[in-house]
Amino acid sequence: MSVNSAQTEPLRIGVVLFSAFEALDAFGPLNCINDLSWTENLSLALLSATLDPVTTRSPFSPGATGQSVVPTHTFTAPPPLDVLIVPGGQGTRVSSPEIDGVIAFIRDVYPQLKYLITVCNGSGLVARTGLLDGKRATTNKKAWHETIALGPKVDWVPRARWVTDGNIWTSSGVSAGIDVTLAWIGHVYGDEKAQIIADGLEHTRHEDSTVDPFADLYGL
Amino acid sequence: MSVNSAQTEPLRIGVVLFSAFEALDAFGPLNCINDLSWTENLSLALLSATLDPVTTRSPFSPGATGQSVVPTHTFTAPPPLDVLIVPGGQGTRVSSPEIDGVIAFIRDVYPQLKYLITVCNGSGLVARTGLLDGKRATTNKKAWHETIALGPKVDWVPRARWVTDGNIWTSSGVSAGIDVTLAWIGHVYGDEKAQIIADGLEHTRHEDSTVDPFADLYGL
Repeated sequence: MSVNSAQTEPLRIGVVLFSAFEALDAFGPLNCINDLSWTENLSLALLSATLDPVTTRSPFSPGATGQSVVPTHTFTAPPPLDVLIVPGGQGTRVSSPEIDGVIAFIRDVYPQLKYLITVCNGSGLVARTGLLDGKRATTNKKAWHETIALGPKVDWVPRARWVTDGNIWTSSGVSAGIDVTLAWIGHVYGDEKAQIIADGLEHTRHEDSTVDPFADLYGL
Repeated sequence: MSVNSAQTEPLRIGVVLFSAFEALDAFGPLNCINDLSWTENLSLALLSATLDPVTTRSPFSPGATGQSVVPTHTFTAPPPLDVLIVPGGQGTRVSSPEIDGVIAFIRDVYPQLKYLITVCNGSGLVARTGLLDGKRATTNKKAWHETIALGPKVDWVPRARWVTDGNIWTSSGVSAGIDVTLAWIGHVYGDEKAQIIADGLEHTRHEDSTVDPFADLYGL
């Protein structure tokens, strides 16, 4: 598959969910995928440790608000997947059996994937699998230093809205997930499709992956 | 409350959910609210007809993907609310008892609200309550004509990222929900707070409510 060659095979997409994932990290890409599914043959799985609803609530602020999303599959019984999307969020900053399970799932499923896409410090979870070692990648710019410490062998790119290396697409913080997903849709289905979806979202795209005002803002 | 005067009282925020709401219409604002809750005293209710998870899946495309979100309250047993956020989506385009219930809830709760905020064609639901009659408002630009037909007595503003009239804030399509929420946060808590949240989201704000590239795109 390459730029402007339409994707004709059905794509099987998965998104991992874990406690205190960042809502927009997941739902920016998911809204693009929902819109894509109106015209393209897709399946979607929301994968988590159990089938219990997964909260976005931060564990670090006692009064934090959150929302709960219902998974469709567990990590122990996943459907076949072509694409995996990994959001970030404050939940990535804890050490827990749940997060260990997310990391193990990413490591185990990667060999079957056509594409692995991360948003925000979701790349920190992938870095902890070793899959990014020797590869170029980016992550959230505000949480830059703590995230890159998770992957000392990764070639971290500080000035990038998103980075592709092989079949791994990593993006910058939160709303960059929308731009990397649109870029990925453009790559697989052609840019006209990506632009139609962006226009439907009334989203002003970051179309150049190397332009990154937030690298400047956070002094990177 | 006015620009740059900090909000000190706890604010009680509600978001209405209904079948085939647009994911990002809700989760753009919700991510801003979640981030705001790290430092401000807020409560959040997700309100729906029942406590069953609510799907974003479009009823108009057989293979459409969707996600399910868990409500916290029903329309018949709501908590006290100061702010109500109304997303849009394809679900607003159907006539159903569920949508009639959403419209009735908005009408009934409005007198107790300090602010009513809509995203995308969520303003069409509010228009059907009559609450926008004689007021300035905007909506999704791609679905402009079908939405404004729902409120023939509304002073619809075609070129606007968002519009405020009294305590009703209406925004344009999907991603405009992030911008109107940030503008509202700026109004209530001061713009520094809004900008910190925007920067954390790595979101390039539309800060001028009258600049609207999508009005041009859709020939309005």
